Amino acid sequence: MDREIIVQKFGGSSVADVDRIKNVARRIVETKTKNNDIAVVVSALGDTTDDLEALALKITETPPDREMDMLLSTGEQISCALVAMAVKALGHDAISLNGRQVGIKTDKTHTKARIISIDGRRIREAFKQGKIVIVAGYQGVTSSDEITTLGRGGSDLTAVAIAKALNADVCEIYTDVTGIFTTDPRVVKEARKLKNITFDEMLEMASLGAQVMQARSIEVARRFNIPLHVRSSFQKEEGTMIVKATEKMEEVAVRGITCNKNEAKITICSVPDKPGVAAQIFTKISMVGVNVDTIVQNVSHTKITDISFTVPKADLNKAIKAAQEVGQKVGLGGILHDDNVARVSVVGSGMRSHPGIAAQMFKTLADNKINIEMISTSEISISCIIRKDEADRAVKALHKQFDLDKKIV
Amino acid sequence: MDREIIVQKFGGSSVADVDRIKNVARRIVETKTKNNDIAVVVSALGDTTDDLEALALKITETPPDREMDMLLSTGEQISCALVAMAVKALGHDAISLNGRQVGIKTDKTHTKARIISIDGRRIREAFKQGKIVIVAGYQGVTSSDEITTLGRGGSDLTAVAIAKALNADVCEIYTDVTGIFTTDPRVVKEARKLKNITFDEMLEMASLGAQVMQARSIEVARRFNIPLHVRSSFQKEEGTMIVKATEKMEEVAVRGITCNKNEAKITICSVPDKPGVAAQIFTKISMVGVNVDTIVQNVSHTKITDISFTVPKADLNKAIKAAQEVGQKVGLGGILHDDNVARVSVVGSGMRSHPGIAAQMFKTLADNKINIEMISTSEISISCIIRKDEADRAVKALHKQFDLDKKIV
Repeated sequence: MDREIIVQKFGGSSVADVDRIKNVARRIVETKTKNNDIAVVVSALGDTTDDLEALALKITETPPDREMDMLLSTGEQISCALVAMAVKALGHDAISLNGRQVGIKTDKTHTKARIISIDGRRIREAFKQGKIVIVAGYQGVTSSDEITTLGRGGSDLTAVAIAKALNADVCEIYTDVTGIFTTDPRVVKEARKLKNITFDEMLEMASLGAQVMQARSIEVARRFNIPLHVRSSFQKEEGTMIVKATEKMEEVAVRGITCNKNEAKITICSVPDKPGVAAQIFTKISMVGVNVDTIVQNVSHTKITDISFTVPKADLNKAIKAAQEVGQKVGLGGILHDDNVARVSVVGSGMRSHPGIAAQMFKTLADNKINIEMISTSEISISCIIRKDEADRAVKALHKQFDLDKKIV
Repeated sequence: MDREIIVQKFGGSSVADVDRIKNVARRIVETKTKNNDIAVVVSALGDTTDDLEALALKITETPPDREMDMLLSTGEQISCALVAMAVKALGHDAISLNGRQVGIKTDKTHTKARIISIDGRRIREAFKQGKIVIVAGYQGVTSSDEITTLGRGGSDLTAVAIAKALNADVCEIYTDVTGIFTTDPRVVKEARKLKNITFDEMLEMASLGAQVMQARSIEVARRFNIPLHVRSSFQKEEGTMIVKATEKMEEVAVRGITCNKNEAKITICSVPDKPGVAAQIFTKISMVGVNVDTIVQNVSHTKITDISFTVPKADLNKAIKAAQEVGQKVGLGGILHDDNVARVSVVGSGMRSHPGIAAQMFKTLADNKINIEMISTSEISISCIIRKDEADRAVKALHKQFDLDKKIV
């Protein structure tokens, strides 16, 4: 059998305590004994990152980004050292490496740095010595030896980038779910685990609320075609493979239903219907760092119109304030907001070749007397904004309508 | 006024919580505003190092030294980042640097590495930019970029070494006492703070139980003649200067009384009185890593003799086991041990020129009906091993006898 190179990533909940760290070490050793070279990326233990952040905020309300990176990067250094100890205790040689030692070079954007390059030499050297390499996720260094972090979920990115640097056969993402499901199993008990899914579908699923993996790292995996395997830290069954599209996969129109209850809707009334006003509004909102999602503007027959859009609930106040500032300049009407909304989406690469999915979705919602407030579409997804308290019912109905509970997918 | 370069070191108890970190930041800024360049060395917050060590021991009973250093070095990186944040929050520019960034190169002896060199360039550069530099104590890197730690109390060593590299005017050691006292003020309420003390005296005091500073760092300060100022983190009064000997200081014979209750006495009975046996015993004991202190062997009139010696209480079992192994080879008698002992010492550079100090000490103990079990002397100290429950009484009597309660020292 050929020697395989496998990158494994274990999230914070997988290494939350001593028993879980020992469990992770056993999983690593099992893979090792199958004649593989293994690099393992770990996140900080449990809530360590949140705890350190809270500590910093007690010192100052505005901790400088550079110092936050010095602080937060310690979380992953702690966990990689402990996991290396646990692996060695099982009789296998292991070495922990922090972001600097593993040669992850980033730009200078503290707290959300971008990886520029990874030097795989030190890992390959360790492989030659028969060592399992345990890497601190989420961090790197700049060209001037400053410590940086990669933003929330950054350990996923570390794993994918290392998989690329090593030309790994697979990058396994261990998490507390057993894979990617047709929808949230807590909402729909008939939800089924997907055997595989395309990068594009996974990206839609991730950005639409299925918070298994960081979206940026899926993009990188897609760009370099690194197969991802999302699976459970606690159970041994196979998880979900995230791969490039295959012909077979395209036969299925809808792969999953997602639901995001963390958005809020803003409606700006009486917007002058002339060129440039919408641009001013959304430029201002983006300048305060808020990502706007769905935007709807109705065709107007008068000289004014209404514009509705959604933002993450946490950014609601910032967005309203920004819109009000524009309003004072160009004369907008009132600003309404509503955080009792949910976004329900159907996702599937096969949509491209299956017409009528949107009609089927709208009809299903109508049959269930669920009113659609906004609609947006991408090439492989259709989303509806509806009342939050109707979201679970909508997800169940759509899951059934697209036969996701019946097929073996 | 000339610009002074000041190195400050704050121990774990000085940065144990958010309020204390803010207090430390204020102390730093006060010194800064007196037109100084300041480098600050910090230990890990409170019990962080102990907590991390305990965590490692739950993973494995024998954590590898290299991984321990990866783990433990995070403690000081956390505290230097937090202190830098606190200083910046007061409106002064600051930057934290870990052992690697500050350029502390060490040998490869993990968990007790020795400093080979310090590159002061990065600190000087920061000084030029008007920055206060906050350095993670206790750590360095090897030539192959492995993280090392300097052993318990290693932050003192970092501070002294940085003071040397920067040619600093003074190295201030901030701690939870206001200085070095003639004896432990908790035992003798008449104890007085010393205005100054020599490096030699401080070394005797430190190794004899006054645990204010790590002995190795005092040795380094002595070698490079770096004035140390031991003072309180919480009170503003001047502390104790540790300096080279001065003529004036030598006028005082006895500078302080120390007491160490953390030793145990071992007596090996019926040791064959022939060359090489003692060497075998103590070689074996040193091989298991135990530091033997006072050794007493009586002149023997027969062919066997008894040897008594003291070891740190924590090493008692290791030392007994080692002695037993030698015993099986060369035929020793029984091994007795006793941990109800204390070492009481009088210390003073002036002793060299003041005869009769020993006699005065022994007479004082005799007058107080305190039996002396063992005696040892150095050039500037005399120590007696006595019953532990008589130690406090002995310290009080000696403190009075040598007029330490009366003089302004």
